[in-house]
Amino acid sequence: MRQVSILGIGQLPVREHWELSIRDLAVAAGREALNDADIKRVDALYVGNMTSGSLNQQHQLGAVVADFLGQWGVEAVRMEAACGSAGSALRQGLLAVASGECDAVLAIGVEKMTETPGRDTTTALVGAADAEYEAVHGVTFVGLNALVMRRYMHEYGYEHADFAPFALNAHANGAKNPNAMFRDPISAKAYQRGRVVADPISLYDASPIGDGAAAVLLVPTAKAPQAVRIIGSAVAIDTLAIHDRQDPLWLAAAEQSAQRAYQQAGLGPADIDLFEAHDAFSVMAALSLEACGFAGRGEGVRLAQAGEILPTGRVPISTMGGLKARGHPVGATGLYQIVETVLQLRGAAGEAQIDGAHTAMAQNVGGSGATVVTHILQRA
Amino acid sequence: MRQVSILGIGQLPVREHWELSIRDLAVAAGREALNDADIKRVDALYVGNMTSGSLNQQHQLGAVVADFLGQWGVEAVRMEAACGSAGSALRQGLLAVASGECDAVLAIGVEKMTETPGRDTTTALVGAADAEYEAVHGVTFVGLNALVMRRYMHEYGYEHADFAPFALNAHANGAKNPNAMFRDPISAKAYQRGRVVADPISLYDASPIGDGAAAVLLVPTAKAPQAVRIIGSAVAIDTLAIHDRQDPLWLAAAEQSAQRAYQQAGLGPADIDLFEAHDAFSVMAALSLEACGFAGRGEGVRLAQAGEILPTGRVPISTMGGLKARGHPVGATGLYQIVETVLQLRGAAGEAQIDGAHTAMAQNVGGSGATVVTHILQRA
Repeated sequence: MRQVSILGIGQLPVREHWELSIRDLAVAAGREALNDADIKRVDALYVGNMTSGSLNQQHQLGAVVADFLGQWGVEAVRMEAACGSAGSALRQGLLAVASGECDAVLAIGVEKMTETPGRDTTTALVGAADAEYEAVHGVTFVGLNALVMRRYMHEYGYEHADFAPFALNAHANGAKNPNAMFRDPISAKAYQRGRVVADPISLYDASPIGDGAAAVLLVPTAKAPQAVRIIGSAVAIDTLAIHDRQDPLWLAAAEQSAQRAYQQAGLGPADIDLFEAHDAFSVMAALSLEACGFAGRGEGVRLAQAGEILPTGRVPISTMGGLKARGHPVGATGLYQIVETVLQLRGAAGEAQIDGAHTAMAQNVGGSGATVVTHILQRA
Repeated sequence: MRQVSILGIGQLPVREHWELSIRDLAVAAGREALNDADIKRVDALYVGNMTSGSLNQQHQLGAVVADFLGQWGVEAVRMEAACGSAGSALRQGLLAVASGECDAVLAIGVEKMTETPGRDTTTALVGAADAEYEAVHGVTFVGLNALVMRRYMHEYGYEHADFAPFALNAHANGAKNPNAMFRDPISAKAYQRGRVVADPISLYDASPIGDGAAAVLLVPTAKAPQAVRIIGSAVAIDTLAIHDRQDPLWLAAAEQSAQRAYQQAGLGPADIDLFEAHDAFSVMAALSLEACGFAGRGEGVRLAQAGEILPTGRVPISTMGGLKARGHPVGATGLYQIVETVLQLRGAAGEAQIDGAHTAMAQNVGGSGATVVTHILQRA
């Protein structure tokens, strides 16, 4: 297999883009990545998206986005793995280049969640859970994560207030990212006052949905030796239904995909300078840190309390705001994480720059740990 | 790139499977392919499906199907390109094996179109067209194809009755396929009496939807030299909106993907012993024959009238019934085509067997020619 690098990146601010349709969003991010790479024509396009079928009544996003990008005749397809869709699109784009079949591939993650008349976003989102054994009972996706958080607090003896460092870090970092949905730091008092969404998850434990698109342009490393390299790439699945897992507090797929990526890269957790975790809910950030070997079992919250997830800490997370503050346009998130990681490794993250960022990991999660896509990137 | 072969196949009869959910359908076909290949564990699973988001409220089919197949921890994702979804899943599975990343990959196409309470199948299906420029005007997917058929008749001077050979051939062949939805031959008189669905498309010009799943197990050719080989594989896109095309009667993406596949295989149309065309509508069968070089422009219907698409003809099509008689579970169809092609090349097609079948082509189409996936297969 050929080694693959990221030559171009593009992203739109996450917000309610009332003036842009789903194709407009994807095309804008894709064009920016093409311009950034100074490439006009690609061999293939992979579009990551979760809800275009359920919310936008538009299937076949691969072809429609390729068409409006002026890429007639290319290979194109949409990848869907719920909130892990964009990471999956990157993964397949990487295989297309690594195989030797393609020399330039565009991977775009896109989601249009506002202006969906007659369609219910909450119903669409619980499609990330098990339709027959979880959603059928009327539980929402945030409700399922609330059960996990409650169990985590019970098993490890934490209070709700102990999770504050995740939200405080994310919002402080989001304030430095011009593309973030929320750009105001929050206080510990604000965190505690956050209204309950699904007990014990309160407003500041849950990431906001939004419209957005992010894109990367992939080439063989040999053709762009100066570009950021992908040195680890792996996907693993777990059961969709949380009750089917041997341990509801262990993200087995996150562990497996991280371990495979570490092995490919010849690295371990200690070598990672920053980690874009899938902090859809604060408890998921804690569980990801544990599964990837940054903290012991039940110690993810303690790691955050010790300040180690801050930009100055041992393993900075959510460095541009994470899902919590940058926003979570579900099927686009995995590529926002990658674009932000590339900015960090290029030393181009502005106010949010992590000093000496050389090697970074990004982990994109579909469902509550059902599809986990891990990538390790390194500065050339 | 490594060469890839198909070691195992599985399929379910296409019909209304009221007793099986979408995951049940996929798992049954996948298990059959695993058993056929005598393989227990795969490295990756690619699920092709169009409407699970819009009709089944289940996203993340990759993980849920892998889980219920007992393939914990594997890589899995869903591919969507409207009716071209299953062909796209095969294509990505092939790249995963060709790259060297995977040694055993399962590709499953699945669709569950009955028992979708509160969801409208016609609305879901027009998502294969352009939501912003076609569907918004209230046109259905069959309505769009009716416009194409009317234009074809006008340009080339055909009558509706001239299209009868496509339906007669498909239903005669479907009668020999135990997995076909319709197993009765039809007469020319029945074709003419078919009720109008969207003028000029009548009942026997349109393929029926249904529930179904089909699967293949892919391995490197070096590990299974006796298995059917994939010697050509290509995808090309065109505009979703038919009015955006330079010529609404030319399937440019079908031509491009076929030409690339021919080039990879070092073959041309004259070398193809049978062609599984995407005969969603009879006019689409005619246009596919033309775009792939089996007939001149406007001559697809004449080729059918001359008997050349029959099992005894120059280019047999729909040899197991095609979309028209086997049935069209939209996102599964591309893999039904491949499974049937493999049966033909193994000499295991029973009553439907094409004598001396050595090299075959299957073409899976998303939308009205917007995403076209072409594969050429050969007996070892």
